[in-house]
Amino acid sequence: MGKKNLSLKDIAEKAQVSTALVSYVLNGKEKETRVGQEIAEKIRQIAKDFNYQPNYLAKSLRSGKTYTIGLIIADISNPFFANIARIVEDEAKKNGYTVIIGSSDENAAKSRDLIDVFVNRKVDGFIIVSSEDTEEQVQDLMDKNIPFVLLDRHFPELPTDYVSLNNYKAAYEAATHLLEGGYLKIGFIGYKSRLFHMKERIRGYQEALQNHQIAAEPEWLLEVEFNTLEEIRTGIDNMLEARHRVNALIFGTYRLAISGLKYINELGLKVPDDLAIVSFGQAEAFDLYYCPITYVHQPMADLGKTAVEVLVKKLKGEEGEKKQVMMEAEIITRSSSKAKAAVD
Amino acid sequence: MGKKNLSLKDIAEKAQVSTALVSYVLNGKEKETRVGQEIAEKIRQIAKDFNYQPNYLAKSLRSGKTYTIGLIIADISNPFFANIARIVEDEAKKNGYTVIIGSSDENAAKSRDLIDVFVNRKVDGFIIVSSEDTEEQVQDLMDKNIPFVLLDRHFPELPTDYVSLNNYKAAYEAATHLLEGGYLKIGFIGYKSRLFHMKERIRGYQEALQNHQIAAEPEWLLEVEFNTLEEIRTGIDNMLEARHRVNALIFGTYRLAISGLKYINELGLKVPDDLAIVSFGQAEAFDLYYCPITYVHQPMADLGKTAVEVLVKKLKGEEGEKKQVMMEAEIITRSSSKAKAAVD
Repeated sequence: MGKKNLSLKDIAEKAQVSTALVSYVLNGKEKETRVGQEIAEKIRQIAKDFNYQPNYLAKSLRSGKTYTIGLIIADISNPFFANIARIVEDEAKKNGYTVIIGSSDENAAKSRDLIDVFVNRKVDGFIIVSSEDTEEQVQDLMDKNIPFVLLDRHFPELPTDYVSLNNYKAAYEAATHLLEGGYLKIGFIGYKSRLFHMKERIRGYQEALQNHQIAAEPEWLLEVEFNTLEEIRTGIDNMLEARHRVNALIFGTYRLAISGLKYINELGLKVPDDLAIVSFGQAEAFDLYYCPITYVHQPMADLGKTAVEVLVKKLKGEEGEKKQVMMEAEIITRSSSKAKAAVD
Repeated sequence: MGKKNLSLKDIAEKAQVSTALVSYVLNGKEKETRVGQEIAEKIRQIAKDFNYQPNYLAKSLRSGKTYTIGLIIADISNPFFANIARIVEDEAKKNGYTVIIGSSDENAAKSRDLIDVFVNRKVDGFIIVSSEDTEEQVQDLMDKNIPFVLLDRHFPELPTDYVSLNNYKAAYEAATHLLEGGYLKIGFIGYKSRLFHMKERIRGYQEALQNHQIAAEPEWLLEVEFNTLEEIRTGIDNMLEARHRVNALIFGTYRLAISGLKYINELGLKVPDDLAIVSFGQAEAFDLYYCPITYVHQPMADLGKTAVEVLVKKLKGEEGEKKQVMMEAEIITRSSSKAKAAVD
């Protein structure tokens, strides 16, 4: 029993009432019709006995509201995004929204598929951590007037709402922290990427060096393609064999730091005596490392919450103007970047 | 232009053809009607110019197939589940399915919400990593004949399809590995949970001790509620102050291990000399720890892939029988559980 879905009409017939009345009761609006408690109970019991499933799909076609947010993250297997997803969910829940999540896995085609699937599933709006080369998709959403907020990554040339980090400043400060600690030969390992946040991190590092009259060796900047062990090995080897050997390293993401630290361990280099370390992003591994790692703390909770806030306001029609929020990171200083005087 | 959705009829009028023909063309079935290339092109151009959006919702109401899988994981912020989600996605993609993800955050009510949302969004089937106390929801899915596969966690009393781990055996082997290495006083830190996988891990540990004629002290087994630092501190303190002080510890999840190792570092205990360690689950932090941690390797890739395989077969009607797959874990032995002779 219960396999075939009963219609409202079937229930009305069984209860010997009108279809409209069944609809009122099952939508919790029986008070508006002053229907007796007994009848309402009877209708609900029949619906339950026959395993009635309200057809929300058809319903949402009519009302146009689903109280669902589509969250597209760049890579679910990256703890930074997974944690941000959890924050977005918790915050959306508080606002009465359910979040459905898709992971584009840093792939533009997959990102487009997901946006299509979610649009077809009638999410009310999107929160998107963009992948590379998805500007056109974002432009499409704007053209179609679909509400969305970009999170963590944005495209400066597109006038979208976004909540992201001042990556330039964070990198500038990370480099300055090392310089002030007496480390004048600083390498940077980032990704070769067209994404703005990564380019900003590299720019911040470079300008900090320039403003401190440090002439960087070409080997000091490594932009890897896929974060393979070979790329990291070769790149770090080059930095250590450069005309001016690096004595400090900034990692552009926590994953690059994990790879790099594994190789640094292999080489038997001591942190910070042989090599001081600062990494973007927080990680459990940084706490358990023999020399706790200094990192650029990204305010994940604030980023996620603010994105939900901005989107929900848009969905409620409360937000007229573009909302572009740029948050500040904080350097969490630990032993891996102890001032040089204290080390030597 | 483009804001209001054109209907097929609108397009038909503009192109001066029948609505049926428009439908055929826009659904890529023009060959069946032998419509001329020119007309087909004209229809597509009109649809494009006026930003026509096919109404997939209405479409899926009719066809009943969406090629979408709903994946419900127990906690997206847990890398184990986030990684498994990535594997499920990749595998589903290969089979032509898109995955939409929800995280129940180990909360039965949230799990039910998500199942409802996904059922209403007409996913073709589910892959679920169950939270505690969700047996009824699982029973509901069975009653409603909604195809699903449980992943990683299952309920032995419910005759569902599932793909999970032989947790009893894995824990038995982890304890045996330590016993054979000369560690006879082994503690276990797990969760106080009604979930089968956790109970099986505890049972495996206990039976291994019994079968080796070890009488466990009551303090050796710690079942925490929330993995707070206080619980971990108190529990480990008790183990170290027991009549027979533990010289080895098994952690029931990688997260418990991270908490425990932080406290063990605080205490200044050396691994494995003061305390040998084996943990369930793999983690980056285990590799970077000064003494690499021995762990029970859960075959994530196989678990995820097999779950998709089982579900897709069901969706295609190829799978008649219940499919219950129990996979084996593997102990990856490293320095943290070096045999005692080698330590002393």
